[in-house]
Amino acid sequence: MTLDDFSDYTRHRVNDYLKQNLSLYTPATHLQDAMMYSLFNGGKRVRPMLTYAAASLFGPACELTDASAAAVESIHAYSLIHDDLPAMDDDDLRRGKPTCHIQFDEATAILAGDALQTFAFELLSDVKHQSTDTQLQLIQELVHASGRHGMVTGQMIDLANVDKDIDVKALEQMHQHKTGALIRASVRMGAISTGAHSERDLAALDAYAAAIGLAFQVQDDIIDITSDTATLGKTQFSDEEANKPTYPKLLGLEGAQALAKHLHKQAITAVSPFGEAAKPLVELANYIIDRNH
Amino acid sequence: MTLDDFSDYTRHRVNDYLKQNLSLYTPATHLQDAMMYSLFNGGKRVRPMLTYAAASLFGPACELTDASAAAVESIHAYSLIHDDLPAMDDDDLRRGKPTCHIQFDEATAILAGDALQTFAFELLSDVKHQSTDTQLQLIQELVHASGRHGMVTGQMIDLANVDKDIDVKALEQMHQHKTGALIRASVRMGAISTGAHSERDLAALDAYAAAIGLAFQVQDDIIDITSDTATLGKTQFSDEEANKPTYPKLLGLEGAQALAKHLHKQAITAVSPFGEAAKPLVELANYIIDRNH
Repeated sequence: MTLDDFSDYTRHRVNDYLKQNLSLYTPATHLQDAMMYSLFNGGKRVRPMLTYAAASLFGPACELTDASAAAVESIHAYSLIHDDLPAMDDDDLRRGKPTCHIQFDEATAILAGDALQTFAFELLSDVKHQSTDTQLQLIQELVHASGRHGMVTGQMIDLANVDKDIDVKALEQMHQHKTGALIRASVRMGAISTGAHSERDLAALDAYAAAIGLAFQVQDDIIDITSDTATLGKTQFSDEEANKPTYPKLLGLEGAQALAKHLHKQAITAVSPFGEAAKPLVELANYIIDRNH
Repeated sequence: MTLDDFSDYTRHRVNDYLKQNLSLYTPATHLQDAMMYSLFNGGKRVRPMLTYAAASLFGPACELTDASAAAVESIHAYSLIHDDLPAMDDDDLRRGKPTCHIQFDEATAILAGDALQTFAFELLSDVKHQSTDTQLQLIQELVHASGRHGMVTGQMIDLANVDKDIDVKALEQMHQHKTGALIRASVRMGAISTGAHSERDLAALDAYAAAIGLAFQVQDDIIDITSDTATLGKTQFSDEEANKPTYPKLLGLEGAQALAKHLHKQAITAVSPFGEAAKPLVELANYIIDRNH
């Protein structure tokens, strides 16, 4: 399976699962619309791809793999809605489309984000899975990655860093929390959902996830200055204009590119013990470094 | 134990539990401060009282009772932070103190609310409880009460109702979602945390919770027009000024007072099969009707 095929497979599978589970009745159709709008705005589904790729190391994806992929994507979608709000990054455009608070209104956007967070835990705790030990483990992973131990703290650090001179170490700490933690959870939850992993497997996947998580950010910073607005689907130089610290600023463009390559190599090495089965994870690492948007 | 004693017991117990579990290290101390500020702003801890009172029907409170009480209070605190935001109810004052976005800033308030939601699921999923079936059941209850099936949908309906003429049935639907669902969960989770309840017990507690949940709102509407700002800790006539539908508006003050009394009676009747053990629940129902702030 090529990466494009794998991407199609993932997108269909996670989208179907999200739609099925979100389509249940609610009296606030406007809320549901805003949740759907943000979940289906053309995202690349990188996190679900990581979940399915990690699961594939241990066997076929099961319904808890679907739930895990859908849950990490819901958390990701909620975080984008809240990050885009006027009080935060104040972005009007996301992937070439109006952000949630522009398309709807600010109150609806806040609530859609809130409900998408709960929805992630709804997917994982659903009584239909009948696998309580694994479900609770998956919930623990997601909690750790998305709340005060992970993503939310990362966003706090990010906001505090605006207009500040910080070093590479502080920048890395911010990214580890803001995006790294959820990427790590996406990978780990894929493995955990199958119930067939060892602690050693998880350690190898942690090393892989840490490297690609950071590589993803370094590459993001690089393409913010090397791609134009049309390719990005958001405003070019937006980091620059927001006075945010970036890798090219701290290391120079070439230094940042070298770091991305180094992290790419680290990621590939980490999953080499899995042999051929790690092909999807390797191709995802390649994609993260090669992408230009 | 008098209600005052029970209230003191609850407050100490849930506050200690919240502090212990929130005090773990995070690199974003500002986020932690905002979470603490909103969790410890002098709230009456009505929901935790309900949790402990329901648990006491079946035996002594256990650590999962503490986790449940703390989790519902965290969800409640997060909802107040987000409801107070400028894009929502735009309130500067809560329980006589500056609201979270006034005390800190709007971005911090949004993120503190987000992190408090995750924190609720952190408390319930904690590996230390070693009771996975019960933990997952508690998470399901909280998910159902707080997300698109409950509280968030209630807030959406509430916002949509401003400046609109709605009938008593629509007002009830809004309250059932906005506050009723979490009050119901507070009661149910208390029972479930002990693992000693039957389905019949839960049905009786549901009837009790539905009645006091609605009574709480009716009484809230009544005191909004009968108490002054100093007693309320928020602005008197705030519902009136926000053009929100209320029970006194729809039923007249006397009609609203009669409804509150009727619901009070329903609640007491629902828990009468539990006999003497239901005394805390009965006293809580009395308190909800008698309070003037």
